[in-house]
Amino acid sequence: MDKAENQGKMVYLFEEGRANMKSLLGGKGSGLAEMTRIGLPVPPGMTITTEVCRQYYKVGNQFPPGLADQIKAGLAAIEQKTNKKFGDATNPLLLSVRSGAIFSMPGMMDTILNLGLNDVTVEGMAAATSNRRFAFDAYRRFIQMFGDVVLEIHKHDFEELLTHCKEKQGVKFDQELSAEALVELVAAYKKLVIDRSGRPFPQEPTEQLFMSVEAVFRSWNNERAIVYRNLNRISHDLGTAVNVQAMVFGNMGDDCGTGVAFTRNPSTGEKVLYGEFLTNAQGEDVVAGIRTPRPISELKDQMPEMYQQFVKAADTLEHHYKDMQDIEFTIERGRLYMLQTRNGKRTGQAAVQVAYDLVQENILTPAEAIMKVEPAHIEQLMHRRIDPSAKLDVIAKGLPASPGAASGAVVFDANSAAKKAAEGVKTLLVRMETTPEDIHGMVAAQGILTSRGGMTSHAAVVARGMGKPCVCGCDALRIDYEKQTATVAGHVIKAGDILSIDGTTGRVILGAVPVIDALFSKEYDQILKWADSLSRMKVRANADTPEDAARAREFGAQGIGLTRTEHMFMGADRLPHVQRMILAETPAQREEPLSHIQKMQEEDFYGILKAMHGFPVTIRLLDPPLHEFLPNYESVLVEVVELRITGKDPQRLAEQETLLAKIREMHEFNPMLGHRGCRLGITHPDVYDMQVRAILNASARLTKEGFKVLPEIEIPLTIDFHEMDFFKTRIDAMAKELMIKENVHFEYSVGSMIEMPRAALLAGELAEISDFFSFGTNDLTQTTFGFSRDDAEGKFMDAYLEKRVLKDNPFIILDRRGVGQLMRMTVEAGRTAKPDLLIGICGEHGGEPHSIEFCHQIGLDFVSCSPFRVPVARLAAAQANVAGADAATSSK
Amino acid sequence: MDKAENQGKMVYLFEEGRANMKSLLGGKGSGLAEMTRIGLPVPPGMTITTEVCRQYYKVGNQFPPGLADQIKAGLAAIEQKTNKKFGDATNPLLLSVRSGAIFSMPGMMDTILNLGLNDVTVEGMAAATSNRRFAFDAYRRFIQMFGDVVLEIHKHDFEELLTHCKEKQGVKFDQELSAEALVELVAAYKKLVIDRSGRPFPQEPTEQLFMSVEAVFRSWNNERAIVYRNLNRISHDLGTAVNVQAMVFGNMGDDCGTGVAFTRNPSTGEKVLYGEFLTNAQGEDVVAGIRTPRPISELKDQMPEMYQQFVKAADTLEHHYKDMQDIEFTIERGRLYMLQTRNGKRTGQAAVQVAYDLVQENILTPAEAIMKVEPAHIEQLMHRRIDPSAKLDVIAKGLPASPGAASGAVVFDANSAAKKAAEGVKTLLVRMETTPEDIHGMVAAQGILTSRGGMTSHAAVVARGMGKPCVCGCDALRIDYEKQTATVAGHVIKAGDILSIDGTTGRVILGAVPVIDALFSKEYDQILKWADSLSRMKVRANADTPEDAARAREFGAQGIGLTRTEHMFMGADRLPHVQRMILAETPAQREEPLSHIQKMQEEDFYGILKAMHGFPVTIRLLDPPLHEFLPNYESVLVEVVELRITGKDPQRLAEQETLLAKIREMHEFNPMLGHRGCRLGITHPDVYDMQVRAILNASARLTKEGFKVLPEIEIPLTIDFHEMDFFKTRIDAMAKELMIKENVHFEYSVGSMIEMPRAALLAGELAEISDFFSFGTNDLTQTTFGFSRDDAEGKFMDAYLEKRVLKDNPFIILDRRGVGQLMRMTVEAGRTAKPDLLIGICGEHGGEPHSIEFCHQIGLDFVSCSPFRVPVARLAAAQANVAGADAATSSK
Repeated sequence: MDKAENQGKMVYLFEEGRANMKSLLGGKGSGLAEMTRIGLPVPPGMTITTEVCRQYYKVGNQFPPGLADQIKAGLAAIEQKTNKKFGDATNPLLLSVRSGAIFSMPGMMDTILNLGLNDVTVEGMAAATSNRRFAFDAYRRFIQMFGDVVLEIHKHDFEELLTHCKEKQGVKFDQELSAEALVELVAAYKKLVIDRSGRPFPQEPTEQLFMSVEAVFRSWNNERAIVYRNLNRISHDLGTAVNVQAMVFGNMGDDCGTGVAFTRNPSTGEKVLYGEFLTNAQGEDVVAGIRTPRPISELKDQMPEMYQQFVKAADTLEHHYKDMQDIEFTIERGRLYMLQTRNGKRTGQAAVQVAYDLVQENILTPAEAIMKVEPAHIEQLMHRRIDPSAKLDVIAKGLPASPGAASGAVVFDANSAAKKAAEGVKTLLVRMETTPEDIHGMVAAQGILTSRGGMTSHAAVVARGMGKPCVCGCDALRIDYEKQTATVAGHVIKAGDILSIDGTTGRVILGAVPVIDALFSKEYDQILKWADSLSRMKVRANADTPEDAARAREFGAQGIGLTRTEHMFMGADRLPHVQRMILAETPAQREEPLSHIQKMQEEDFYGILKAMHGFPVTIRLLDPPLHEFLPNYESVLVEVVELRITGKDPQRLAEQETLLAKIREMHEFNPMLGHRGCRLGITHPDVYDMQVRAILNASARLTKEGFKVLPEIEIPLTIDFHEMDFFKTRIDAMAKELMIKENVHFEYSVGSMIEMPRAALLAGELAEISDFFSFGTNDLTQTTFGFSRDDAEGKFMDAYLEKRVLKDNPFIILDRRGVGQLMRMTVEAGRTAKPDLLIGICGEHGGEPHSIEFCHQIGLDFVSCSPFRVPVARLAAAQANVAGADAATSSK
Repeated sequence: MDKAENQGKMVYLFEEGRANMKSLLGGKGSGLAEMTRIGLPVPPGMTITTEVCRQYYKVGNQFPPGLADQIKAGLAAIEQKTNKKFGDATNPLLLSVRSGAIFSMPGMMDTILNLGLNDVTVEGMAAATSNRRFAFDAYRRFIQMFGDVVLEIHKHDFEELLTHCKEKQGVKFDQELSAEALVELVAAYKKLVIDRSGRPFPQEPTEQLFMSVEAVFRSWNNERAIVYRNLNRISHDLGTAVNVQAMVFGNMGDDCGTGVAFTRNPSTGEKVLYGEFLTNAQGEDVVAGIRTPRPISELKDQMPEMYQQFVKAADTLEHHYKDMQDIEFTIERGRLYMLQTRNGKRTGQAAVQVAYDLVQENILTPAEAIMKVEPAHIEQLMHRRIDPSAKLDVIAKGLPASPGAASGAVVFDANSAAKKAAEGVKTLLVRMETTPEDIHGMVAAQGILTSRGGMTSHAAVVARGMGKPCVCGCDALRIDYEKQTATVAGHVIKAGDILSIDGTTGRVILGAVPVIDALFSKEYDQILKWADSLSRMKVRANADTPEDAARAREFGAQGIGLTRTEHMFMGADRLPHVQRMILAETPAQREEPLSHIQKMQEEDFYGILKAMHGFPVTIRLLDPPLHEFLPNYESVLVEVVELRITGKDPQRLAEQETLLAKIREMHEFNPMLGHRGCRLGITHPDVYDMQVRAILNASARLTKEGFKVLPEIEIPLTIDFHEMDFFKTRIDAMAKELMIKENVHFEYSVGSMIEMPRAALLAGELAEISDFFSFGTNDLTQTTFGFSRDDAEGKFMDAYLEKRVLKDNPFIILDRRGVGQLMRMTVEAGRTAKPDLLIGICGEHGGEPHSIEFCHQIGLDFVSCSPFRVPVARLAAAQANVAGADAATSSK
């Protein structure tokens, strides 16, 4: 269609629209138009465009010029098709007025039915249908909806009059009211309207219509719609379309009815018509739940012809839309009318099944099929989860730090968790926060719950790495270690009490919960295989142990994008050496503990590289500040103060005072911006050398044993060419020496983490000395915003999101305009300097679909995420590529 | 000169060069060339260019092809002019070979004199001068220098032989040695050369010359030269030129001599020839200090004609170079030779005086004159400083946090400082670190010394604001509050001991030191007035009190670029209200303390705005995290532990436990990236509203009283358009309401601090809603590098500078490539969105000359710095502008 031709066109008859005009006509409007276009029986109507709604707000909440005339013209066309007249005393046309936004916002906006009734037409309606009761029931429903939606009179006031009327008549249900009672009720309603709005109920049908259209526009900005859009990240600027359609009635008798149906089972995906219907009823009756609707299969017996027609229409729609449809229909006196069709919402299991089946049925190509599965669907299938049908006693909510459900007996320390686990008791570890010393307890527990710390707190990071459910930062929880209790919302939870967490939603639940297992079907595997073949980006996993690496491979990772070496420092067998190394005063004193650690690190790397045989493994050198490996300052301080006062153990006091002084010396005001990352490598080159030797030795051994290793040595927190130069020179020298000494050759590379703005700004020169780049977008977000994640999420992030200063939490969804701008600059400058530079991302964003899409768009080579997010990322990477190709095609 | 013509030209005769070829010929070479060009008596010679030195290193430490021939051609020209022959047995030409870098590196590189002597020419020399002793003395000096510099034989070994020879001869001084003894010494030297280098001393003069030239090239990279360049921020890539010049001798008899002189007094700037000379001596004799040189004025009596010639030459040079010159000369048998001229180093006082006088003498324009004064010169004059002639007992060094010298009796707490001050005792406050509670002690003390914290620690920032000397982060200091002692380098300093600090250098000095006052002469005022008239950028000051503001005006500030409102929160009369405000649980509870604070803030702003009548005043809303106003966590914790154990005061325990819980709740992991700046304004709009009302009320009162106020309300830490939108909407509404209510009108503006990378990245949209931008480059540097300044400077910055990973400390000298790139992007995007956007800088960099130059280059409108740096900044701003104009002119 020529765009210019349609300039100023504000109203489209259904037969003028089509499916791809969704952004102009809204979801419902384009669906009705498309159904009309392909010849399905749709009551005639017209759609007022979303553009008109935007105009309405722009010009100060009034109809744009010309709208009234276009509506009247549309009305004339509907009259002609229905052979009825709007406002006619004998054969009145009645209308429905419904909102229809671009993205489905079910129940958020308003609907008005039976519009066109007034004191005159109601009588015509009564005569025409020979059913006075029906006509007055329709009239009173109309006044009620109009009063509520347009005149903003409280629904409750109408309900009160209705109840009063039923009591007076001595009946229980609405449908038992007689025509006479309804006539009286209409009078009472009209009086209510005058009392509350100060003017009579409008009798002029055109006035009714215009007022209703305007009310739908207004409903776009009602409170619940705004909240819904905020929650679902829908822009407030889109506006809604308004659909004006000739009424059909499913409640005119036993040859009438109404129903909804999915073309397939939305829970399982099974290919079977799934839905329900009611005879002699309107849509609202189904919702009201007064009569129990019947399964759609029974329609076959009750109205065989209608059923056949519906099955055929449903099949047509599914083939037409190439997706499972969610359809509303009404049967009026033996005629089937289609009132709505849209892609049906479904569970993860159903999404995978439907997509797979539609390919088998030659309806979809694999590329189309993967676009029908949402990343959230895959995620649903990844974790053991709470049975959705279970009744839960939710007592608090924290941050959903690591997905999955866990139940267990509450323990308040790591040792108890380990002890209970040895006894075969399932536990839930509840702590204010966790530290490296709690690792054994975290391994032993079913899940972890903390009252402090954000999505990157120790508990969260470690739990995600383990794939263990975790809820953290649950402020409401007051933990008293001494009393061994946790108090929340009036409940006192004692050690040993059963508590559950849902790491997917952050819920904390009293008692045990029924969980269901993760589900990996052959259809699921096939979908992800298709995804891999349709992706440009590779998906790697973050893994710190051989077990994690093996699991990552199982989940389809094509390499390790981040091995954190610091978690290896925390084992009970290592920490003492690590602490001796840190407390050493000179490089000479560090030598001996370093040689211990090197041996252990070599075994770690040996295991991971072996597990990833043939795939690249990015190993990040030590990143956290060294003081993280020392005992907690406060606990040592408290002990020192106690020992001083009691004078009990002078030797211990002296030791702890020395330790305290050392910890104090290493204290940092802002550890996130402190002495960490490759800054450690600059001040303590021996520590980095030790790690590099461990990597190289492990690689040499494996190469000799016939494995193919591809170690990528990653330097964290780089900010300058000269840093990289310092490390690369040392690493190359060590590698050369080793290869000559051991007479072995393997490929290795040395790359920069891009996680500080300066690294992004100087990416061109960093690329010259780097074999690869890997974005650490968590730190890059922290520094670009100047937000410490641990502090922001507990203290001000909520206010930022509530006040809409930020649309999304940038730690969850990559900030494209700020952080993304730096990333784009990095890729451009990096590839200009070195066209084949390998670039990836290994932060949390690497597993978040919206962020993955951006990574694809700016040309990254891989994303890396925790093993449990690998399948989601595989799908998202493919979708980004397919969407990009589609966009490229359609822009041609 | 045509550049192409000179391609491949590696050697320039002095008559071929000129002053503006410094980067090719080095400082010394271009000076010699210029003196030759303007007809002064210079011994003929040639300069091998710096480009050759760079080539030498590039091709692997060897002569580039063609160099030898060009040197030989130059040599022929020198032979012709001197009428001597290099290596000639009867009339030998002798040469000096001297390094000459682009920037003066005095004594850093090597020199060889008397080159061309060998066993044959020494005899010719002896015959030609009729002075065998002189000839052999020259020969042994040559062997010694050549042996040291070229053959790398230890100087000490030659000295030993010399000493042995003197002992044998029974004489004390070198010049007492007879010709015969020197012949013997030459033989011994030659034997030493064979023993140590394995080959005989080279007899072939051309070989001597080539080896010497190469040695000078090599000396560019000797250790002390590298250290010197590091210290003086000179690039290692420049290379040195080599000057080869015919020797003249000041030690051939009593009609000979040598000397150095400044054309003016370099200490005071007084216009009088200032220098010294020695008859019958070589330059090294002056340096050796064996004979005492005589004042240059005495030359007038001793050699009146030489003196007249020299005075004329000096005058010519000063007029020619338009600056005070530092000149070396030699008189050989009644002939004056000029050996070097360069701009003389001078004190701040002299610099100002000379620049001023040269304008009065019509030698310089004001624009030229201000370029002759260095910012460091102005700084020297700003503070009371330690008498440079005093002997000091320096016992430690900390960070030079706030310049100036201070002496006083040591006190370890603020109360003692206040008490002693009341008694009239001058004190030095010595603390591990300071907190807001120490302010009264800081005011009372002469200076502040801390053992912890960096250049932006509380002590440093507050001291700078007060213009009070401060040394902080002095690690070596071990303070024991209990024992009231501080231990450092073996010294135990007790309370009451006199200690001094030099805040300009960071020195800590035992005992009192003699200080001299700041010096503001009429010449100084005039220089700065010229600077103001030659600047494009304005200079403002950072000031938090009316007193500071008044001082800033005195120092020539044209506005306040930063008023920190938080220091106003710390007064003893306010802190209790502030703490009540912070500990309040609800906005309602905050209301009462806020209303107290508002009244006091209004008076603060009233005072500052009044003091700055007619000038703009940028007021930053509350910036630091609120927990900074609460008592120190550790001290409360220690008290709680003690009270628990002793059980002494249950009520106090309960109170402190509550307080502890609150402080813990407010604790942040990384406060620098935490809940501060305008994030406080988002979560606590009432606090920001209070401050805005105080500003507006004060402005309204002053306007009514007839003052002109220009308040600029500054929002700190902005990262998004919507933040600014939130604040601007509120501020505009409050202003409108007030102006209507009070029937008053004044201009005000609302701007963004650009101190987070995201603000820089989104500058375009921020500009749309901001009246001005002000860079906070301290925080911008912290976030761009990911360096917490407080942590970096104590923990790893030294290693970064030592290992040359960073050339400069980016907190002192603005990082142009990283942070500067963001600033440039900001200015470009900001001015694209709003061409007249006012943009300034208010961080520490705003007072640092090199950074000020960059601010000028990228087009900022103002820099703002502490009042005491305003004069320095005024000069630097002017210099940047004049240099820019010069560059523009010369590029035409």
